[in-house]
Order: sequence, then C-alpha cells, then structure tokens
Amino acid sequence: MTPEFELIRRHFTRAQKSSILGVGDDCAMYVPRQGMAQAVSTDMLVEGRHFSAGTDPEKLGRKSLAVNLSDLAAMGATPRFAFLALALPSVDDAWLAAFSRGFFSMADAHGVELAGGDTTSGPLNICVTVLGEVASSAALRRDAAREGDDVWLSGFTGCAALALAHRTGRAGLGGAQLAYCAQRLDDPQPRVELGRKLLGVARAAIDISDGLLADVGHIAERSGLRIEIDREALPVHAAMRSCGDETLRLECLAAGGDDYEIAFTAAPREHTRIVEIARELDLPLTRIGRVVAGEARALLLDDQGDEIVMRRAGFDHFSST
Amino acid sequence: MTPEFELIRRHFTRAQKSSILGVGDDCAMYVPRQGMAQAVSTDMLVEGRHFSAGTDPEKLGRKSLAVNLSDLAAMGATPRFAFLALALPSVDDAWLAAFSRGFFSMADAHGVELAGGDTTSGPLNICVTVLGEVASSAALRRDAAREGDDVWLSGFTGCAALALAHRTGRAGLGGAQLAYCAQRLDDPQPRVELGRKLLGVARAAIDISDGLLADVGHIAERSGLRIEIDREALPVHAAMRSCGDETLRLECLAAGGDDYEIAFTAAPREHTRIVEIARELDLPLTRIGRVVAGEARALLLDDQGDEIVMRRAGFDHFSST
Repeated sequence: MTPEFELIRRHFTRAQKSSILGVGDDCAMYVPRQGMAQAVSTDMLVEGRHFSAGTDPEKLGRKSLAVNLSDLAAMGATPRFAFLALALPSVDDAWLAAFSRGFFSMADAHGVELAGGDTTSGPLNICVTVLGEVASSAALRRDAAREGDDVWLSGFTGCAALALAHRTGRAGLGGAQLAYCAQRLDDPQPRVELGRKLLGVARAAIDISDGLLADVGHIAERSGLRIEIDREALPVHAAMRSCGDETLRLECLAAGGDDYEIAFTAAPREHTRIVEIARELDLPLTRIGRVVAGEARALLLDDQGDEIVMRRAGFDHFSST
Repeated sequence: MTPEFELIRRHFTRAQKSSILGVGDDCAMYVPRQGMAQAVSTDMLVEGRHFSAGTDPEKLGRKSLAVNLSDLAAMGATPRFAFLALALPSVDDAWLAAFSRGFFSMADAHGVELAGGDTTSGPLNICVTVLGEVASSAALRRDAAREGDDVWLSGFTGCAALALAHRTGRAGLGGAQLAYCAQRLDDPQPRVELGRKLLGVARAAIDISDGLLADVGHIAERSGLRIEIDREALPVHAAMRSCGDETLRLECLAAGGDDYEIAFTAAPREHTRIVEIARELDLPLTRIGRVVAGEARALLLDDQGDEIVMRRAGFDHFSST
C-alpha cells in the first residue's frame, strides 16, 4: 500500500461494530433486520456546483452525509450504513482529517456506520450512498397523499438560499442573521427523528432539497392531486424577516432549495399528534396548505386565493443560473 | 423538470420489476430475501484516471457496472440492484444513449435492476454502487484461506495491461492481438457465475483489479498466511505470448491490473469439482500456487523456487506512473 492510500485509510478506518461482516473485503456485508424493507439513496456532490472551492471540509463532511440522511428521513427509514466514494485532486492530510471528522460526527449523531467506499484521484467529487430500514407498508411515500390531507412543513425554508444570495452579492446579510443562514446552508440537520415519528401519522412525505414548491410538486404529481400552499401560512424565520427584498424573500422561501426540511401530508385528524411531535422534537411543524382534487401540481396562493407565479420553482443542477 | 433532466431521465428509465418499491421516491426500497446477507460495493470511475477522454460510451457504461459486479462475484453474491451517480460536463444525447445502452446490457446479462441514482453537472465521474445477496456463512471472504490450500485463477491476466501499454506507446500490438487485448481492457466480463459456483467449494477469493500479486497479497494479509505463486504456472493467453518484451510481459501478467478475474483458494480435495466448473462455464481455471505458513504476503517464484521481485506489484490510483 502506498503512503497516500495508507493516509486515506487511516482517516476513514474506525473500530467497526459487529453489524458489518467482511470489513476490508471485496464487498461490505450485513444481515438485514427481518421483515424490513431496505431504503437506499445516493447523492453526488461536486465542487463548483454543490459547494465552492475552499468550503470548510469538516462541514462538507457533515453535509455530504446529511443530504443523504434527509432522503431516508423523508421515507421514515432508520439509517444504518453509509458508503463513501471520494475523488480527490490531491491527498491533503489536514483536509482529510477535517472531512472525516465531520462525516463521522454526522454518522454518530444518527447511528450510521461507514461500511465501505472507494477513493481515487480526480476533480473533487463526493458520492455518498446510504442504506436504511423501514417496514415497507409504513414507509412515507410521495404517492400516498389523499384529497383532504393537510400539508405540513418542518422548520423553516429559505435561509440557506438567502445565505447563497449573500455570497453571490444579491443580498447583504450581517451578524447573527448571516451566521444563522450560513449554518443552514453549510451544516443542515437531516430530520431523521421526525421521519421516524411520522410513521403511521403522515401519508406522503418528501425532503425539501430543490425548493419547496418544486418538491411538494413531486408529491402532487405522484399522488395525482393538486396541492395548494398558502403564502401567508409559510413560516418565516427571524433571519429571513429582515430581508428587505420581497421578491428575493419569496423566491428563497418557496423555491430556494438546500433546506433539508420535510414536507408531508396528513389527515386532519392527525393534527393533535403532529403538534405533540413538534413539542417532543422542539421543532416547529406548520400547516402550510392542503391536498385537493385537480391538476396534479403544487401552487402557491396569495391571501385572495390567487396563484402566485414564481419565476423559478426550484434548483436545477444543470442550469447555469 | 428542465429539458436536460427530462432527457437524462428518459435514457435511464425503464419499466421496473416489482422488486423495487417507491420508484421515483426519495429512496429506492426493496425487500431482501429472507436470511440472506446483503453485499454492497461502490466504485468511482474518473475520466483521465480510469478511462481516457473519448472512450466509447457504450463500453464505458458496461465497464462501470462490470467492475462492481466483479466485487460481488468475488464474494459469491448474486447481484440484485445498482445505483448510478453520474457527473456530466454537458448533456449529450448520443453519449447518454450509448452509455445507458451499455449499462443496461451489462445489467440484463446479470439480472441487475437499476434502482436509483443521481445526476449532476461536473467533470465526468461515474459512481456505481451494487447490492447483492449471499448466505453470510457461505460468502467467499479474503480472510478464509488455510494452510495447504491451492491457489487458483480464472481466465488470463495481463492482456488489459498490455492494451494500455500499447496505447501509451510501450508496446506495439497489431491485428487480432490488439483487438483481443483492447476488449479485455475496455469491456471486461465479471465472473459472476463463477463466484456463485464457488460457494461451498472455494475458501478465500478476491477479484483481480489492481494486479494479481497485489490482490492475492490481500488474501495473504487477511488470512495471515504466505501465498506462493509459480511463475511457470501462470496461464498466458495467445495474445500475450507474442509480446517480445519479457519484462513487460511479466509485469502485465503479475501486476497489470484491470483483469477482473477471480483468484481463489481451495482445499486440494476440491480439484475435481473445480475442473468440472471450468468445463461448465467454458472458462479456464488454473492452479497457480499454494497457501503456506510464513510471513503474510504473496510472492512470485521462479522455477528454482526463488522469489522474483517485481518493480511494481499493482496499480496505484494515486501514483502518477
């Protein structure tokens, strides 16, 4: 083994729990819990597209796992294993130490084991695959919304997008406001516990990564129903309120992306239980709209019930804007 | 959805079998077969490192899955699902059509379903994760070799490395010889069927991707035993025999890499069964050495029993040579 590989291995090797068989073998192996469906998600993060050069590697390590855990959360799955493939332009000891520290801190917070991966040289690229378990009949799917459901949102949207707007010169944030928004962008918290508590309570769910309207639109499309979101019902974080640019504010709230909150639908009778879950988790859960019959798409409505047409509905990984 | 995403989705969407739940959801979901361990492997292929710019996209699609299936084969696992994460510098319809055609042809040949993935813009990077199943007690592990085992090799090593030597100007191949070696490099065949047939027959196994000596060395290290490979026993393909450069030839055979053959150990009493398997699969299986007590490493021996020290033992993804 070359010194480079030895160095990389050192940063990513920890004492393994007994759940992984054949560590250091051709494959990682594990025995699934009986009767549980396996939920799998893969996300690829590319420098210059999902994060800028010079991004704090510790936060990048955390976020590269967090965005995948957010997908598991949106199905109500319990995370078990992660696989990390990494292309690195060079072997930088300090960068690897910080990245792996961040990755493992996120893994530990959610009981995830790093079970395998691959490392190569190349333009910086981080590809994480996570594996979780959920009773297949209980999983929160996008296609399960029903007419008459309420639509709920965890936490707040828009702050991550506002931080990005600040960095690209479109907004001027300061002090605590900037610190909060930057943390939302650089160090998102996947709502894993929420997802698990919503099993048996919510019907459909999705994580908000590309923008609220775009993502809720996927529930609408997959469920074949219209979803109305009330502009006035959207929760607005204090850090967002001081943004004077109304257009930017609405764009961040409804189409910002990188929020990693959960939107879900539930029967109105679940209202009390949902309020309880919010209290248990100390996480705001806000009713923002409803599922109705009609064309299968999500709409934003003003206080007159008229549609607010957005210039862009969500983040596009192939768009250059 | 933007036209770019629509285009990409079109190339990778096929009618799904019932084994995948929640297609188009936050995660792919499947129900594992009862009592089976799940084997998972991830490989990342980077342009300029694992393949050169302008590589035939159809073959690249086949190879990006094949190298992962080779890891499953080396454990005796039956492939089930693949996840494909792709960073593309641009959205090129013809490239995507050829790549996906190749990927699916390899998937179909081994009963693999493409269950999910991610696509983004960025320098060309292909990250594939595969998932297979194997009875955990039967899996072929690297640490299971025993003193007295024979060491076996499927097929032939070295031809892929010889093709690479040709492309970099170190060897001059022609005609059928070049065609065969290029095919071995660009379109390797994972030994999935062999792996399955070796369950209960072989003890330890590994796939040869970084060079025979380096990879067999992993069995030696993990099993805590010395492995002796006989230079004279190594099978030499006709396309390799005409290579006049003895040094290059030995380097390709023993340390070439990109072979995707299986090396395995087995008790001498399995000899007859192994010969039968070779006939069933129409695939040469050659006894190339033995597992003995001693320092935990793999050695190449000449016909006098003296060690042949190689300049390099295998392919290093971080080396520039």
